[in-house]
Amino acid sequence: MKTKSIAFLGPLGTNTEQATIKYDPKATPINCSSINEIFEMVTTKKADEGMVPIENSIDGPVTDTLDILIHESKLSIQNEIILNISHCLITNKNSSEKESFSEIFSHPQALNQCKKFLLAKYPKTKLIASMSTSEAVKFVANSTKKIAAIGTDRAAEIYEAQIIAKNIEDNMNNSTRFIVLSHKKTSPSGNDKTSLCFSFSKDSPGSLYKVLGKFAKRDINLTKIESRPSKNTLGQYVFLIDLEGHQEENLIKETLLEVKQEVSELKLFGSYPIDKISK
Amino acid sequence: MKTKSIAFLGPLGTNTEQATIKYDPKATPINCSSINEIFEMVTTKKADEGMVPIENSIDGPVTDTLDILIHESKLSIQNEIILNISHCLITNKNSSEKESFSEIFSHPQALNQCKKFLLAKYPKTKLIASMSTSEAVKFVANSTKKIAAIGTDRAAEIYEAQIIAKNIEDNMNNSTRFIVLSHKKTSPSGNDKTSLCFSFSKDSPGSLYKVLGKFAKRDINLTKIESRPSKNTLGQYVFLIDLEGHQEENLIKETLLEVKQEVSELKLFGSYPIDKISK
Repeated sequence: MKTKSIAFLGPLGTNTEQATIKYDPKATPINCSSINEIFEMVTTKKADEGMVPIENSIDGPVTDTLDILIHESKLSIQNEIILNISHCLITNKNSSEKESFSEIFSHPQALNQCKKFLLAKYPKTKLIASMSTSEAVKFVANSTKKIAAIGTDRAAEIYEAQIIAKNIEDNMNNSTRFIVLSHKKTSPSGNDKTSLCFSFSKDSPGSLYKVLGKFAKRDINLTKIESRPSKNTLGQYVFLIDLEGHQEENLIKETLLEVKQEVSELKLFGSYPIDKISK
Repeated sequence: MKTKSIAFLGPLGTNTEQATIKYDPKATPINCSSINEIFEMVTTKKADEGMVPIENSIDGPVTDTLDILIHESKLSIQNEIILNISHCLITNKNSSEKESFSEIFSHPQALNQCKKFLLAKYPKTKLIASMSTSEAVKFVANSTKKIAAIGTDRAAEIYEAQIIAKNIEDNMNNSTRFIVLSHKKTSPSGNDKTSLCFSFSKDSPGSLYKVLGKFAKRDINLTKIESRPSKNTLGQYVFLIDLEGHQEENLIKETLLEVKQEVSELKLFGSYPIDKISK
């Protein structure tokens, strides 16, 4: 039997690769260079499924993913994966150096997330930007200089580098939620979440309130609500909602029919099982 | 008379510096290296005011700013500034080269925002990460190699570099909203916005709905609603709201008193004039 292929955000050693392995260790991973490319690969059926990050507990929503979901994609969310994100300080395998480095490399976001650690332990070390945490680890692993990188333990494994310190991020509560995209719809599991978005043709003070009322009167729990500026006008919004329940359940079906009457556009992204760590 | 000092996110040539100049060209700017440092400088009165980004139309909320506002700061928002963000392709002043570069430098976010332009015009050029767009422009301005940077026109001016192309971002609708922080409260101008956040001690399906009802029944327009994961538990949220009106107006005062009854915590960030471009 042919194994399933999953397009993910590369290079090897990224958190998206880790999420892909957690989701299905037997699948064939396909390395993509952008979130847009992953949507493309699945849409054109060059990959069976796609794994993309959708929100991080510290950095907030992944807007590339949200904007493609809202404006372009016809794919469904068929699963979610929550991953704890932990940064490591990494150097090359032969180095005995643990205390002084001339340079530390990483993606600016990762350097920023480890600011307190870097300031306390390496106040004088020069911080240098890389395109990704994996690229930083790969570069450092292949160097003979006294340099280090910030990246995942998985990247250290792949590029045969040495981990000097783990969990060096300032905020320990760092997790990322990933979604699995495909052409398929997922059947109810009994413990599901539904993601959708809607917008109004014009701003009016009570419109969002009316829609939320449809959920409230049925005791449907919303696990997320978020507004994104619509691409047309500043001040107009698209609202993204995650709710507990599956779109094939009668209660949810009936609610969504009522919501449709109140909004100018409603788009369902999919219903899928709630990941255990997420709740 | 001593001029007002404003702490901003440096280095020179960043969009935050541009916002500071737009807000008050006569103020003394104080160059800070992080959003945290700007809050500190104003809190400890080493600067009169602070200018920080709060949201970008493409990249979404600036979570460093939101998290400090929600959890730590006692400063007030006393103004907002909306700036159109435009990326330029920049090289050194003596270069006659406009068509082929060996490397293009910038912050990964800026490289990402100009992906289509780069792919169309420089498909084979190596993209290299920098810590900020300004750092990239400074480096390229001082180099004699055939390299380019992506940054602001202001950075090109400061570092005496040459602009090759303007408005090279994929999405033209790119604007950033900045806020001015201080110990002062701003008096009503007649056209104001109020920013606040609240949370609930436990998730219950109708709680957000009840709060929004307080605004809806008085026809108070919400110009923003956003949820941020609370730092304690996954699945619990802090809600951020911007509404039209000033906290000293009776209608708003009375509403906020009612909202207080429904939430476990309510924090007012301030009331301030709506920036002209924002509406």
